[in-house]
Amino acid sequence: MKKSIGILGGMGPLATADLFRKIILFTDADRDHDHIRIYVDNNPAIPDRTAALLSGGDDPLPAMTDSLRKLEACGASCILMPCNTAHCFLPRLQPLTELPFLSMPEAAAKACAVRFSGKTAAILATKGTISSGLYQDALEKEQVPFLLPDDSQQDALMRVIYEGVKAGRPPECYQNDMAAVVNGLAARGADIFLLGCTELPLAVSALGWQLPVLDPTEELAKAAIRFAGFSVRKS
Amino acid sequence: MKKSIGILGGMGPLATADLFRKIILFTDADRDHDHIRIYVDNNPAIPDRTAALLSGGDDPLPAMTDSLRKLEACGASCILMPCNTAHCFLPRLQPLTELPFLSMPEAAAKACAVRFSGKTAAILATKGTISSGLYQDALEKEQVPFLLPDDSQQDALMRVIYEGVKAGRPPECYQNDMAAVVNGLAARGADIFLLGCTELPLAVSALGWQLPVLDPTEELAKAAIRFAGFSVRKS
Repeated sequence: MKKSIGILGGMGPLATADLFRKIILFTDADRDHDHIRIYVDNNPAIPDRTAALLSGGDDPLPAMTDSLRKLEACGASCILMPCNTAHCFLPRLQPLTELPFLSMPEAAAKACAVRFSGKTAAILATKGTISSGLYQDALEKEQVPFLLPDDSQQDALMRVIYEGVKAGRPPECYQNDMAAVVNGLAARGADIFLLGCTELPLAVSALGWQLPVLDPTEELAKAAIRFAGFSVRKS
Repeated sequence: MKKSIGILGGMGPLATADLFRKIILFTDADRDHDHIRIYVDNNPAIPDRTAALLSGGDDPLPAMTDSLRKLEACGASCILMPCNTAHCFLPRLQPLTELPFLSMPEAAAKACAVRFSGKTAAILATKGTISSGLYQDALEKEQVPFLLPDDSQQDALMRVIYEGVKAGRPPECYQNDMAAVVNGLAARGADIFLLGCTELPLAVSALGWQLPVLDPTEELAKAAIRFAGFSVRKS
């Protein structure tokens, strides 16, 4: 039987729209009726995940649980979160529901191992995601070599994410910061860029750069399509 | 008090993603928390609206009502439908709920009168929408002069919508049909093109054409942002 998808969203809103759109684009469908039923709760009231992890910000779990209950009530068969940092809260969230959460870092690491065998991945993510070790653990499990931004590159990346994409600014505002991150990591041996924050595929797309990237949002979308019992469109 | 938005979607799925994204893009927000809570039910099981209106297809009302109940249960403050033809069913849907439906044709006609005063609008829409008179009535109320595609232009437009965008085909597959529609209507005196089917802004965007258009999806997004008590971003 075909299943439905629940998106626990708002983290951030544009990334939520991006995941939703990518599920639809990658579903092998010729007409409306061939698509997947998808429920979205775009809940911007969920407190910032990085702030909660690193600087004593409000616990996002109550608001995330509120969204989880709404998606359960709708009839979702699984839950996706279009926010990598939010996955740090999975050990507390998963026990609250019988619905499976599909993991974005796991989907991305598996795709990395298959599509870029032997290549070194640079992990581009928020400080919260990096400090959690989410992507390091997922890549180690798949035996993908990786490297991390240094402190100044990490600061530049946080500006791209928070002062650029999340603030709705045009790409001119963050292209220098993004170039510093990409060039610095390439010089240190990065072959591909793992866009481990859901705002980053939006940044790369807005910049129009042709980079060797792995987009975890796209990989999560494809994993969800397969979970729901549908086929992924051949691109 | 700030309100939330419910999107009764899946009609079609890409148009639903487009409306969702436009609400976020046009919300005047600097960070995640400044955005609007949005609930989406992307329900592709809703039978085709044009088929129901014109050729005895299944009644979409039961499936639409199922989605409406889910959005009510989530706590939506209003309902949007990212499908113009679906608005033909509003007289039967609105009595089923106390939540207000915001009308896409009304939002579009008001924007047309303000932004293109004195200009003639060509209504590009499905046969179902045209035969319902939805846009004709809304434009007459706002005293906007309009004209309609002839039969062969209307057939070409249906191919763009159903065999092009809804089928996920690239723009090369429908550019000739779209050009025939646009050039034919311009020759008959159309100043602007009212994209009265939610697949058409996607088609125009994919084609990369610079046309004088009015995008009802964008106008509905802005109307919903104002309804929810938020500000529309100055572009």
